[in-house]
Amino acid sequence: MSDTPDSAVRAYIEEHRSAFLDDLVEWLRIPSVSAQPEHADDVRRSADWLAGKLKQTGFPTTEVWETDGAPAVFAEWPAAEPDAPTVLVYGHHDVQPAAREDGWHTEPFEPVVRENRLHARGAADDKGQVFFHTLGVRAHLAATGRDTPAVHLKLLIEGEEESGSPHFRTLVERNAERLAADAVIVSDTGMWSETTPTVCTGMRGLVECEIAFSGPDQDIHSGSFGGAVPNPAAAAARLVTALHDEHARVAIPGFYDGIVPLTDQERELFAELPFDEREWLRTAKSHAAHGEAGYSTLERIWARPTAEVNGMGGGYQGAGGKTIIPTSAFLKLSFRLVAGQRPDRIEQGVRDWVAEQVPAGIRHTLTFSGATRPCLTPLDHPALQSVSRAMGRAFEQKIRFTREGGSGPAADLQDVLSAPVLFLGISVPSDGWHAPNEKVELDLLLKGVETTAYLWGDLADTWQPAPGGPAAP
Amino acid sequence: MSDTPDSAVRAYIEEHRSAFLDDLVEWLRIPSVSAQPEHADDVRRSADWLAGKLKQTGFPTTEVWETDGAPAVFAEWPAAEPDAPTVLVYGHHDVQPAAREDGWHTEPFEPVVRENRLHARGAADDKGQVFFHTLGVRAHLAATGRDTPAVHLKLLIEGEEESGSPHFRTLVERNAERLAADAVIVSDTGMWSETTPTVCTGMRGLVECEIAFSGPDQDIHSGSFGGAVPNPAAAAARLVTALHDEHARVAIPGFYDGIVPLTDQERELFAELPFDEREWLRTAKSHAAHGEAGYSTLERIWARPTAEVNGMGGGYQGAGGKTIIPTSAFLKLSFRLVAGQRPDRIEQGVRDWVAEQVPAGIRHTLTFSGATRPCLTPLDHPALQSVSRAMGRAFEQKIRFTREGGSGPAADLQDVLSAPVLFLGISVPSDGWHAPNEKVELDLLLKGVETTAYLWGDLADTWQPAPGGPAAP
Repeated sequence: MSDTPDSAVRAYIEEHRSAFLDDLVEWLRIPSVSAQPEHADDVRRSADWLAGKLKQTGFPTTEVWETDGAPAVFAEWPAAEPDAPTVLVYGHHDVQPAAREDGWHTEPFEPVVRENRLHARGAADDKGQVFFHTLGVRAHLAATGRDTPAVHLKLLIEGEEESGSPHFRTLVERNAERLAADAVIVSDTGMWSETTPTVCTGMRGLVECEIAFSGPDQDIHSGSFGGAVPNPAAAAARLVTALHDEHARVAIPGFYDGIVPLTDQERELFAELPFDEREWLRTAKSHAAHGEAGYSTLERIWARPTAEVNGMGGGYQGAGGKTIIPTSAFLKLSFRLVAGQRPDRIEQGVRDWVAEQVPAGIRHTLTFSGATRPCLTPLDHPALQSVSRAMGRAFEQKIRFTREGGSGPAADLQDVLSAPVLFLGISVPSDGWHAPNEKVELDLLLKGVETTAYLWGDLADTWQPAPGGPAAP
Repeated sequence: MSDTPDSAVRAYIEEHRSAFLDDLVEWLRIPSVSAQPEHADDVRRSADWLAGKLKQTGFPTTEVWETDGAPAVFAEWPAAEPDAPTVLVYGHHDVQPAAREDGWHTEPFEPVVRENRLHARGAADDKGQVFFHTLGVRAHLAATGRDTPAVHLKLLIEGEEESGSPHFRTLVERNAERLAADAVIVSDTGMWSETTPTVCTGMRGLVECEIAFSGPDQDIHSGSFGGAVPNPAAAAARLVTALHDEHARVAIPGFYDGIVPLTDQERELFAELPFDEREWLRTAKSHAAHGEAGYSTLERIWARPTAEVNGMGGGYQGAGGKTIIPTSAFLKLSFRLVAGQRPDRIEQGVRDWVAEQVPAGIRHTLTFSGATRPCLTPLDHPALQSVSRAMGRAFEQKIRFTREGGSGPAADLQDVLSAPVLFLGISVPSDGWHAPNEKVELDLLLKGVETTAYLWGDLADTWQPAPGGPAAP
């Protein structure tokens, strides 16, 4: 389908891999830890460095965008053909905190290559996966003899992802016109494994809430009053219990309304993955699997919504016992959502349900935070097919499909830009995101380069999303 | 029934009240706070002071008994008649902590009389109620012309009650022979109110336990794993929920086995008390009454067992949210027991039940502490009738019956000495036990003196508990 001879792409990558890796190492030396104020200058330095490198790569437009927090980088390289699809690549240039004493074998910001792996904080999450786009677009041009990419290519690389992206949505809303795209490609996820390359097709959404319960106006004596007054800790516990029915289904009325059901095809594709539950339990550090009846473990974490208690407390917390009926208790709950669920409706449903459950004599307040919508791209979406084909050429292997159980800022792009979100990542579970000794497999990193070298041509050849370009939102 | 002319008792008390109060004030000046190590010498000074005062009162035997903590005081005054009943009075000479800045209007250890109330830490709990026995026994002797009390009188006044009586049971077991008694009179409780004098007939028992739950080996990501592994906080919450059925009855199998049922007479007597639920809720600082179906509030707190969550925790405790499945959770539970329930059986029942409830993949450990047996004296017990009659003479009023919802070291005396426990207290709810500005009503304090002045003669006249004296346990 593409006119790019794969051998030309490979030759170009081989020729430039050394300079590409030197550049990446230089970037990884900048400790762009967004969560630590003492690294604010480093995060800015990282943005400036990236903007410079993208300019050098050939992007005619490169800008550092300010936010109320750390800066993001925007770059744009239009195709010569006005009707080409517009693609926005998302990634981030900030990294998790890291210190040698956390268990690193070498300094986290002094990258080293051992056994064909590049070790450094940010090697996989996310600098490596952002950076493969630079060599990728050059290889695409070289192999096709083009001067411009076959798609209108935009990059938005934020600087606060590891701090929860507090200013990201505002940034996207403010620049929605310039960010307008037919598809968003998120370069910040991973694959099933080194030997099973996959494309992720969706992430779950998220609604978080805290419920404060108050009972007696102060802790009261459980001898003098016990058995005759309601206990707010017991009320909190009963609410947690009532969250699920006996089939581990969420029991809040309307919770499952509108959910896009798993198709038989998706279930079959999930089932084909080389999933070993014992191995998975080791990764989860859990001693059993448990979840909604009628669904496999992978279906539960990828395609089914949840209600989870993340924190709870109430009453005496010290050593030994204290015979009180506590004055208060709290719950921190979160709900993972899947395609078809809307955070606002879930919030209202939770609010109504909680009000109904809390017994007389116990007052409660409910505070919601952090709503993120789920995103899901149908398997037959042409852009998803392109990603899958491009990966297949790079990996010379069948590409399978996964989803992500987590939630991310990609959903903001989907919402604000009304564009489908696709995920292109080459990281593997052993890469140690957020952990000591983070690494990226160099072979996979170059497969990432190669995938993007095929992708833009494939997309332009096979997809005509919206004649005249994406509508400005 | 007694040959003590009430007027002689009253005249004697009137004559000696001033010296009696001066002595009590002197004792209250000693800050015998057992919980604060810096007051250890004061607790000892308090014991020595009391032993000296009891000697002065006429007790032929007065001893300070050492424990591994604070000392107790023992005194004994045998009746001339070998077959007289033996009575052991229990109280404590240590007090709760108190500091002016806690909200005291005057210094807590500088007693003052305002509006016929003596304000000082320990005025009601428990020095005042111990001390009325000194003038009481002298009034008894003076009015009857006896040289010895009509009963074999023993006093055991401990020094660690406000610290949870950690060495009390050992002390009682070690001295069981010398403490042997036909009845124990606990002088450390109160009455319904100033206008409704009452005798307490029992206290609830207590079993406390802590349950630690562990799930995944560390906190894990609720996006990556949520919905597919068991959550220890949810398991803890479900256990709390399962503690009770829909009638607020404890759902642990066998929990109610062997309970001595409330008699119709007791229920009628409770119902006669001037109980105002709205007023009671104000005292409880609770916004609703709630408890076991089929029982009144007073029955629930006095005569029915409970299962209560005193503390719980698990997962994220800080501000905002954190999307984890927590590695662990805990519950602190306590069970109040009533006559017929045995702490050891309840413990076994809880242990078995918890093991059955905790789901696969969640491990738990159960730690019990602080078992106290319930105690209950039947309404028709001759010694209880004597206490009621003696109070009736002092108060010139019908004496009603109550119970206590709390649990106390009295149960140790009942267990070790195999003697019924009776409660004789003149304190009222407004006395402010453990609170700032604790006080005792002087009129009621003198009614306490008067009650004991009648009691010993009444007991000797109406009760022949065990010819030859109580069996050494």
